[in-house]
Amino acid sequence: MIRLERVSVERALAWIDAATGCLDTEETAFETPANRILAEDVRAQNPIPPADCAAIDGYAVCAEDSLGAGAYNPLAVAAGTVEAGQALPVGMDAIVPFDQAEPNEAGGVVLVEPVAAGASIDRQGAVASADALLIAAGTRLTARHIGMIAIAGVARVPVIRRPRVRLVVARYARSGEPFDGNGPMLRALVDRDGGIVTDAPLADAFAPGADLVLVAGGTGRSHEDRSVAALSACGKLDLHGVALAPGETAGFGRLAGGTPALLLPGAPAACLWNYELFAGRAIRRLGGRDPALPYPSRPVVTVRKIVSAIGMTEVCPIRCLADGHIAPVASFAEAGLMAAIQGDGFVVVPEASEGYPAGAQITAYFYDERQIRAEPMS
Amino acid sequence: MIRLERVSVERALAWIDAATGCLDTEETAFETPANRILAEDVRAQNPIPPADCAAIDGYAVCAEDSLGAGAYNPLAVAAGTVEAGQALPVGMDAIVPFDQAEPNEAGGVVLVEPVAAGASIDRQGAVASADALLIAAGTRLTARHIGMIAIAGVARVPVIRRPRVRLVVARYARSGEPFDGNGPMLRALVDRDGGIVTDAPLADAFAPGADLVLVAGGTGRSHEDRSVAALSACGKLDLHGVALAPGETAGFGRLAGGTPALLLPGAPAACLWNYELFAGRAIRRLGGRDPALPYPSRPVVTVRKIVSAIGMTEVCPIRCLADGHIAPVASFAEAGLMAAIQGDGFVVVPEASEGYPAGAQITAYFYDERQIRAEPMS
Repeated sequence: MIRLERVSVERALAWIDAATGCLDTEETAFETPANRILAEDVRAQNPIPPADCAAIDGYAVCAEDSLGAGAYNPLAVAAGTVEAGQALPVGMDAIVPFDQAEPNEAGGVVLVEPVAAGASIDRQGAVASADALLIAAGTRLTARHIGMIAIAGVARVPVIRRPRVRLVVARYARSGEPFDGNGPMLRALVDRDGGIVTDAPLADAFAPGADLVLVAGGTGRSHEDRSVAALSACGKLDLHGVALAPGETAGFGRLAGGTPALLLPGAPAACLWNYELFAGRAIRRLGGRDPALPYPSRPVVTVRKIVSAIGMTEVCPIRCLADGHIAPVASFAEAGLMAAIQGDGFVVVPEASEGYPAGAQITAYFYDERQIRAEPMS
Repeated sequence: MIRLERVSVERALAWIDAATGCLDTEETAFETPANRILAEDVRAQNPIPPADCAAIDGYAVCAEDSLGAGAYNPLAVAAGTVEAGQALPVGMDAIVPFDQAEPNEAGGVVLVEPVAAGASIDRQGAVASADALLIAAGTRLTARHIGMIAIAGVARVPVIRRPRVRLVVARYARSGEPFDGNGPMLRALVDRDGGIVTDAPLADAFAPGADLVLVAGGTGRSHEDRSVAALSACGKLDLHGVALAPGETAGFGRLAGGTPALLLPGAPAACLWNYELFAGRAIRRLGGRDPALPYPSRPVVTVRKIVSAIGMTEVCPIRCLADGHIAPVASFAEAGLMAAIQGDGFVVVPEASEGYPAGAQITAYFYDERQIRAEPMS
């Protein structure tokens, strides 16, 4: 029987941080970097706008032509129709809104008041001068960044390489749970955190070629727990056991080449929370992302006592009440993975705490950003 | 020149809601429904757990064998090693933790205290009885749901069909903005909201085969604004113009078959906000998602005056200060799409409001959930 030493969650997090750093940079086409992490600052190639252009839809005119125009002195001037964002036609230096001029048969317009040079014009470089910083390295790129990158004329975008995560489901045919939930769940989690999953059998788990190895199952203390023995044979098991409930049998080690390998318990709820606290953090750090838990949080009041054992960091499922307060629901020990379905979120009770009395203000994490919304916009 | 009637944002939202409803159902394999919307309740096929099983790692024993065990009467009993979640071996009805028994050479263990029948056992059906509701229709499926679906033995998952969105970039070669940002930006936005984009030229924009048509550009009042004329010829333009800044030249219509078609202004910031308020809502409704803006929000205090014109709903970019308050930044009229890059989020100022004085409490939406986090977990 393998001896299990339970280290604190803090020590396990420090191990993760020491074992993982941001990966190298690759280039992607400007259309495709959604959710990628920008590796280098994006700067304007040219001024934005690249030339003086219309700020509004209207008629482009030459302001000098309008001198003297008035209600009793309508002036016909040359004009061109422009849309907001369009460059000014040559010789034009002001825009008149459509409803302040009348087109005439000569292709120009009739003005009844003068217009100032520069009126309704966006000047060249007004938004950004050439070489100005547009988007800082480290930004997670979303649709609006992609639009800006395209406008700026940047064709190839430097992004952090996505972590290659090798996933091994070491024990999935347990008679108590005939269907493996860990493989599909972990694939979706790794994808969420920006990693690329490849599946492998346990025999190939610790070969080179991955940025991180995840093994689900086989971490316990029985004779059939082969993951721990396999990693010990192919590399080094640094930590085995962590004071986390659910999920105390996790293992943390490295392959001969230094690649981190994490052994996740096979019980689904234990697998989930070891992933969220440790494996997900490793993947987010490798990929240059914010390493924190990817769930919004807010201060809440619990209306019922939350009980937790001293000596273990415990993840306690909660549900959100109509008044914004929260209450605990059946624990992961009682309901397994179902506790993560029935609840709206969770509270992380630190190792040194016995939990919280009713009425205590605590920080809760929520699965869904809607639980954080100030006023639902329906 | 086309006449533009500006309807209120509320009226345009009501048009969107009347024009769009939830699409039909399709099935997906149990491993692949991440971010899909569940179309029907998922129920347990069998009890969970399907049989009595171990709640902890340990030795499975028959409780009756342990009667009379004590410090002065160690008893050797038959035992089998089990892991949490494993079904009980035949004849066993209790689990003894590894550290409360000593294995002996006969393959059993020696006990120094009796154990009660049912100790550390999860009973068949304790988490869910057969046919119990596991996940309700309408849920957006994430990793933890996928794990639960797999454990429950559900092979095919009924989900709402993804909306087919035809995207037409009607004018992208404007000399003031030589590069089209709208196409890449809209593709990323539609993908975020669960739609499937197909690109088409304006000539094919209004053919059958899509659930929604988006046309970017060509919505203004100049002679070159062909989108409006094209939709009017192929279907019906219901609304042209909305009291939204940025983005007042949007158009809302339907093809002959009833498919909604939205004409988005070509200026990038106007395109973005018409998408976020109207087109994105249409896609989210078609796909069975929460129609609200997909950004977390919270009540904030503005430290500087936010100015907005009466008669227009205005999207005002803001940044988040270190103390959690917010301040306005250069508007979309001033900085275009760059205002969505420089800011951390936005405030939607209603049509009837002139804005807010410094010190006012308002609701802000944030691009990044980190701006909502109660206490960063670093």
